[in-house]
Amino acid sequence: MHKAVVGCSKTATSSVFKDNAIRRSCSLFTVSRKNREIATPKNVTSFNICRQIGATKISPLAVQEQPKFLQLSNINPNFVEMEYAVRGPLVVRAGEIEEEMKHGAIKPFDYVIRANIGDCQAMGQKPNTFLRQLLNLTFCPDLLDCAEYPDDVKDRAEEILEACQGGSVGSYTDSAGLEVVRRQVANYIERRDCINCDWRNVYLTDGATSGIKRILSLLNCEVNGKKPGVMVPIPQYPLYSATIAEYGMEKIGYYLEEETGWSLNPQELNRAINESSKNSVPRVIVVINPGNPTGQVLTRNNIEEIIKFAYNNKLLIMADEVYQPNIYDKKSQFFSFKKVVHDLGHPYNGMELVSFMSASKGFLGECGVRGGYYEIINVCPDVKAMLWKSITASLCSTTAGQVAISALVNPPDESEPSYEQYVNERDDVLASLKARAEIIYEIFSKFEGVHVKPIQGAMYVFPKIEIPPKAAAAAKAKNMPGDTFYAAELLENTGVCIVPGSGFGQKPFTSHFRSTILPQIPLLKEMMNRFKKFHTDFMKKYK
Amino acid sequence: MHKAVVGCSKTATSSVFKDNAIRRSCSLFTVSRKNREIATPKNVTSFNICRQIGATKISPLAVQEQPKFLQLSNINPNFVEMEYAVRGPLVVRAGEIEEEMKHGAIKPFDYVIRANIGDCQAMGQKPNTFLRQLLNLTFCPDLLDCAEYPDDVKDRAEEILEACQGGSVGSYTDSAGLEVVRRQVANYIERRDCINCDWRNVYLTDGATSGIKRILSLLNCEVNGKKPGVMVPIPQYPLYSATIAEYGMEKIGYYLEEETGWSLNPQELNRAINESSKNSVPRVIVVINPGNPTGQVLTRNNIEEIIKFAYNNKLLIMADEVYQPNIYDKKSQFFSFKKVVHDLGHPYNGMELVSFMSASKGFLGECGVRGGYYEIINVCPDVKAMLWKSITASLCSTTAGQVAISALVNPPDESEPSYEQYVNERDDVLASLKARAEIIYEIFSKFEGVHVKPIQGAMYVFPKIEIPPKAAAAAKAKNMPGDTFYAAELLENTGVCIVPGSGFGQKPFTSHFRSTILPQIPLLKEMMNRFKKFHTDFMKKYK
Repeated sequence: MHKAVVGCSKTATSSVFKDNAIRRSCSLFTVSRKNREIATPKNVTSFNICRQIGATKISPLAVQEQPKFLQLSNINPNFVEMEYAVRGPLVVRAGEIEEEMKHGAIKPFDYVIRANIGDCQAMGQKPNTFLRQLLNLTFCPDLLDCAEYPDDVKDRAEEILEACQGGSVGSYTDSAGLEVVRRQVANYIERRDCINCDWRNVYLTDGATSGIKRILSLLNCEVNGKKPGVMVPIPQYPLYSATIAEYGMEKIGYYLEEETGWSLNPQELNRAINESSKNSVPRVIVVINPGNPTGQVLTRNNIEEIIKFAYNNKLLIMADEVYQPNIYDKKSQFFSFKKVVHDLGHPYNGMELVSFMSASKGFLGECGVRGGYYEIINVCPDVKAMLWKSITASLCSTTAGQVAISALVNPPDESEPSYEQYVNERDDVLASLKARAEIIYEIFSKFEGVHVKPIQGAMYVFPKIEIPPKAAAAAKAKNMPGDTFYAAELLENTGVCIVPGSGFGQKPFTSHFRSTILPQIPLLKEMMNRFKKFHTDFMKKYK
Repeated sequence: MHKAVVGCSKTATSSVFKDNAIRRSCSLFTVSRKNREIATPKNVTSFNICRQIGATKISPLAVQEQPKFLQLSNINPNFVEMEYAVRGPLVVRAGEIEEEMKHGAIKPFDYVIRANIGDCQAMGQKPNTFLRQLLNLTFCPDLLDCAEYPDDVKDRAEEILEACQGGSVGSYTDSAGLEVVRRQVANYIERRDCINCDWRNVYLTDGATSGIKRILSLLNCEVNGKKPGVMVPIPQYPLYSATIAEYGMEKIGYYLEEETGWSLNPQELNRAINESSKNSVPRVIVVINPGNPTGQVLTRNNIEEIIKFAYNNKLLIMADEVYQPNIYDKKSQFFSFKKVVHDLGHPYNGMELVSFMSASKGFLGECGVRGGYYEIINVCPDVKAMLWKSITASLCSTTAGQVAISALVNPPDESEPSYEQYVNERDDVLASLKARAEIIYEIFSKFEGVHVKPIQGAMYVFPKIEIPPKAAAAAKAKNMPGDTFYAAELLENTGVCIVPGSGFGQKPFTSHFRSTILPQIPLLKEMMNRFKKFHTDFMKKYK
């Protein structure tokens, strides 16, 4: 804790205060330079110093020695049990390494490369101009008079602003989001599937996450004294396992079939449900397509099998389809679960389904903005009313995210001034992702003891790695799984940060890791050079 | 559901696609005007029509006649039990009235006035220039070269962008928010309280809500087979009761003492805890200061009493202090619970406390942007580690909200170019709120059968109303509480939307309503004119 001498409201003054009470409440929100005594303690950045004003000493907070009311033994046990890999210990360690280097530590590399998280812009992807312009015009409507913004962006900004209470994105929208954006989403879904979409079934969210959590919460009901079971793929995006743990639900893992390119095998689905705990009732199956962390794109036939399985077992389908624009393989195509459910006809076309989408992935990659939506399909009106009630009891998702979703689903058309730039930016991003997917696949294919499937879609690769016995023994000595040991060694020796397969789940006695394909090509080549040298040395050392 | 003919990916074409797979996945994200057949079905706005392209028919979704797997009987019962007032039936009705008027219905008023929700910008408050400029520069860093933006805003934008991975607010930040903003918050808290604040105890959130929900969830633990009890004020902001219901916790209501200006009476706190269910264990007390819906500002002495009560009963204090800048009464002053806990000395200064803050209230009123933070104080390291784990298992709050918090806690100082405008805008907003608080108080004071306390702070008034016996009978005939009947009649007759007291809780056999003080002065006068006429007629009719 730094102990800076900073300004105190007691000493702040301003001539413009109009009232004593207001002055008191305001003095924090500007700082006076009068009577200042600036100290320059250690660990305070120049930025902090420039904000330090006033002469009053800051008291240290009391020594915290008394017994606490909150202990591990009396807080929510689900918080204690929960685990999460993507931002787990190795990512923390990556941050520590960066800090150490800032303070002069010498490492065998110049900088850390973060291939642990699907964060496009962190790895150098440029923001989409159309989207950012739309954000600017909605946040500063004064700019609507500015000749530098294209008319199509202005039209869209005006439409959004008209839909906002008071004409401002600073006001709350409906809890489910702005109607105009929900209608745009519905139009997008109709263009995608050629099936009707009612905008009232579309809810805007902060990324896909908040929707996924709400739907899982909706299903969190004991049935005949048994816990609700959630079928999730193994490997899976750990949001699901973390949320299932947080809510105290039962995880029913089904293995993706690595041999067939991470497909879903109905026999395996049946095995998983049959072997699930007798204390749980399966209620829902989660499918991630295109796959995270596995990068597969499900075939239409495979989707049909999954739907039939869900129908036979009375499961809600949660279709995590956030990577739907990310298809790289020529033979692969994205089919929405909604489309296939519809096309299968009776009785499958009445099945309950929720589909999730995000502005964080695709070609926009606006992770920090937090835009997302979900569509609920075929849910009975009573249940929909309860879902609606819980949505209205929450506040709206961020308007910045709603604007981002609007830019995603309502892009410029051919006749509009932003069209060419939009298309070029989009295609550049997707073509580059495809190129990166191919580079990574090719290089890993040549690694000794590494088995990798082609990256059909999404933003990840999930190779299997044979950990040599000596390495397994070294890992055991450090009380680590083999893949964690491998990933930790990689990080310490090369600065490349990946996530061990155990963070996503994998078949017993196998080891994997997940790397994103997101570093831009020069950085990716640097990363793969480091990786290759490390792997060769690792195998030499431990074989 | 509208049945528009809209474009289908099958028919979209573009010459710039670089790859078949990419073309397939892209065709949704622009629309071709070739071969279009535009239908103009009913209920489709001109906007929808301009996006409709392609010749493929949209299939209707299947008739949804089969039995559903999800029923009221097998979803989370907390969703069924939850209630929420601020966006409840009257607000829905207000929206319906607006729709009816759009379609030509004649009402005894020209427009609806929404005084039901603390949404400043919806009611005409202008956004803060400094904040919006900061958002623009962080969304579009190209504008950093633009001479029209002041240097202090540019400096701050650059500092934030440097802290973002890849230099973009489109990348994920740490789950707890950007370190630079967390440090700014800590500096703000130090200026406010003159007590040390460790930035690592500050977590950025989407408004205050997500932090409040996380802390309640952390405490959601059965102890010796008993439910965790949450002490909340009555009346209270219904986020608390809704969340307590959602999490299946036990609500322990304590009445605010209307006679003493909605203070907290320690005797009443003791009564509440002694009479609470034997099946629950009190774990936490929620205090809202300044008060929502009651508008009181707690005295320092009263805060000391609450702290001692919490200590004696081993309760965590959750201090909802989002209205801390909103003090209008000359004799009132805001004291943070942290400050008073500290000043009370041993043993109180080691007490566990969480304080919540938001960019949605104060003088910024950026509700839609969703910025907030909380500070945890004196929490034991083990518990903090579990909280931290659950935070890292979630994704970050929206970067737009983080930027808004930065603008709140790190305003321009006297020497900087944005200072004068910032101060003027801030003081105008606060002076106007104070004026509106006084106008409302004065007018309601003169209403027959209405008893109102001075509005010391926050954004609300919560008058008591004596419902005449005939009105009570009319309400009963409609199966409504008296205050709901009053509010419903007000809405239908005048278009003024308020929230009945029963939505916040109140002493048995009393009736209240909450109105915001947020309509700008001309609109407020119009609202109070309508209100006055209605009230006079209502009393005449039912007395």
